[in-house]
Amino acid sequence: MTAAPETGYTVLAPDVLAQRDVADPLARFREFFDLPEGVIYLDGNSLGALPRRAEQIALKVLRHDWREGLIRSWNEAGWHDLPRRLGDKIAGLVGAAPGEVVMADSTSVNLFKVLAAALRLRPGRSVIVSERDNFPTDLYIAEGLARLVGQGHELRLVDTPVQLNEAVREDCAVLMLTHVNYRDGAMHDMAALTRLAHRHGALAVWDLAHSAGAVEVDLNGSAADFAVGCTYKYLNGGPGAPAFAFAARRWQAQCEQPLSGWWGHAAPFVFDSAYRPEAGIGRFLCGTPAVLSMAVAEAGIDLMAEATPARVRAKSVALCEAFIALVEHHCAGFGLELASPREAALRGSQVSFRHRDGYAIMQALAERGVLGDYREPGILRFGFAPLYVRYADIGNAALALKEVLATRAWDQPRHLARRAVT
Amino acid sequence: MTAAPETGYTVLAPDVLAQRDVADPLARFREFFDLPEGVIYLDGNSLGALPRRAEQIALKVLRHDWREGLIRSWNEAGWHDLPRRLGDKIAGLVGAAPGEVVMADSTSVNLFKVLAAALRLRPGRSVIVSERDNFPTDLYIAEGLARLVGQGHELRLVDTPVQLNEAVREDCAVLMLTHVNYRDGAMHDMAALTRLAHRHGALAVWDLAHSAGAVEVDLNGSAADFAVGCTYKYLNGGPGAPAFAFAARRWQAQCEQPLSGWWGHAAPFVFDSAYRPEAGIGRFLCGTPAVLSMAVAEAGIDLMAEATPARVRAKSVALCEAFIALVEHHCAGFGLELASPREAALRGSQVSFRHRDGYAIMQALAERGVLGDYREPGILRFGFAPLYVRYADIGNAALALKEVLATRAWDQPRHLARRAVT
Repeated sequence: MTAAPETGYTVLAPDVLAQRDVADPLARFREFFDLPEGVIYLDGNSLGALPRRAEQIALKVLRHDWREGLIRSWNEAGWHDLPRRLGDKIAGLVGAAPGEVVMADSTSVNLFKVLAAALRLRPGRSVIVSERDNFPTDLYIAEGLARLVGQGHELRLVDTPVQLNEAVREDCAVLMLTHVNYRDGAMHDMAALTRLAHRHGALAVWDLAHSAGAVEVDLNGSAADFAVGCTYKYLNGGPGAPAFAFAARRWQAQCEQPLSGWWGHAAPFVFDSAYRPEAGIGRFLCGTPAVLSMAVAEAGIDLMAEATPARVRAKSVALCEAFIALVEHHCAGFGLELASPREAALRGSQVSFRHRDGYAIMQALAERGVLGDYREPGILRFGFAPLYVRYADIGNAALALKEVLATRAWDQPRHLARRAVT
Repeated sequence: MTAAPETGYTVLAPDVLAQRDVADPLARFREFFDLPEGVIYLDGNSLGALPRRAEQIALKVLRHDWREGLIRSWNEAGWHDLPRRLGDKIAGLVGAAPGEVVMADSTSVNLFKVLAAALRLRPGRSVIVSERDNFPTDLYIAEGLARLVGQGHELRLVDTPVQLNEAVREDCAVLMLTHVNYRDGAMHDMAALTRLAHRHGALAVWDLAHSAGAVEVDLNGSAADFAVGCTYKYLNGGPGAPAFAFAARRWQAQCEQPLSGWWGHAAPFVFDSAYRPEAGIGRFLCGTPAVLSMAVAEAGIDLMAEATPARVRAKSVALCEAFIALVEHHCAGFGLELASPREAALRGSQVSFRHRDGYAIMQALAERGVLGDYREPGILRFGFAPLYVRYADIGNAALALKEVLATRAWDQPRHLARRAVT
């Protein structure tokens, strides 16, 4: 073991990493996932891995519920309750109470709902404050909503978090932030920024896409008003698995969201011609849920609940710190620059490095079985999903990165050519 | 064979029904579905049956794409193209051109998008005209949108189709109709009503929930402006399978929809902070699609394309006419009243009967293996999915209905007690 002078984190030798895996209280969770051979998967913040139980659920939905039960399965197989039942499970992972979270639609669609609900609770105020570096879809959704409402509503974007203190003023209806930044993993202080919003009479809307299942989130402890989040990243819900929406209980009865489809109606099967919202969180439902995708997501959600966010966070911090130390030790002099906060308390479960040729480097790494992600501009993004990433994996990933950089293996036409990635 | 005097349709004897099955050009399609034993399924207009290929697709998505490919599958397994590729297949079933349909979200969410887009194309007009008997979620969505836009926008509802002629005036921005009514199966003349809208400078938005895969739809031949539809009914896409949205090519470049999520961006992976919509139908996408549910839906869509809407419609008309004749023959005197149009050209692929005790009757029928659906007030709804419903099935269903009515088998507490149904 050597100390990395720059970080203060310890550079762990391979045998020490192996010992950590042996001692890891979450080690057994890796067996609940079905991971491909020869891959070190550091992109669980983009798409989580496959829980083994997912296939059982899918086959049960297909062979039993859909085939046998057909229409009866809405009642008899519990399809009807899925959005609320899984919402309650997710609530337990993000510091919300049962009845405050519902699973539905996509993160973008849910953001539109909660943002519109929040705006309506703040009549006379017309500004949504956010960060220019927020995940783009959040800004696009706010932009679309502001244009539709059209009464001088606008989006006020800041370039650095400290500018939020000035941007949140008496004209601010909503402070809309993503808790953990998708690019550099920087994590906001949810409680402090929610207080900032409330102090100026605004509401706080949080996007937990890179938080749920990655860091400890305490929505009610932070007095958050509304939130949305994703289940296909650290919650391992499956590709495009439905997202979730949170509305604090104190707002539920009085808030209104414009995607007022029949699933949010107090009595959808009475087939009234006028909309009357369900009393609770159900009013954030809209249309019929994608049952198969939603049902399968329960496998990953259950694993996270069993692991507990506290244990996941502890291992995540250890993995991130070890990775930073290893990369800065092995890859010194190759032009990499840490893009994530160095302090764990300010960082989610990912570590990003900046490099001019980041895209090509990530392609070359992928060829060596190390899957991370690339984000403009020049960001190599490594996500650490503590349920299936081992300490040994990050040691090997750091060595692969060293090899790619030292040999300039990335400097090949096939790595430099871009194409659509997610 | 006896002639049913009331209908003019022929009452077919069991042996004749059996002969029709033998001669049915669509008979072989039943084998492509996995249907439960002992069930006559006449609720395909609520949830279509399971295509056998659905399981193969689900296992391929789970075992190959998700497990092996992980994040790479967005490109390499074609997940990224799913909404457009399946949209093009659906386009071929509803009289649209490739590039005019995209698969996404739920019918309700898509209706919000196209309705908002249509409203914006008609500035200065503030009325959405529809029918009070439209499927409730359509009215709820229009109501939610009108309240959000809030500039005197309103929903003008008529009680009978003929009143549309007066309701569509110069203040009308959009005529929003469901092509085939969910309750009684009455089918509108899409071309004539679209002309009515256009004559007054309004746009026509069609909901094809009970049309796609059931009747022949010619969106472009009718000059329809926008449409939405469902894939989990007659298209057999699976429970809550993602819906679709149509925008006529002439509107695509100039129209704008407010659910402007990153999937509708011209270059989502550039991560611009400003929204710039894709040039074509892609701008009607919003968030990440529910891949598993969407991929599985291809099985049913492909079967419908192979069967062709024309052949499906021909058999549907024959099934409906035969069922009306059989029920009116066997069940005369038991208080049933045909609630659907008697003329095939005015009817979709369902036949509804009215009865004071409709709910309990449908429960008693279900106990006898005949699954239809109940809709308030007092409507027994029988949907005919020509890909897997046989002529013999409708003969047996009519006889079961006769038995339930003749013996008053429905008059039991367990049948009379209501619960949530879809």
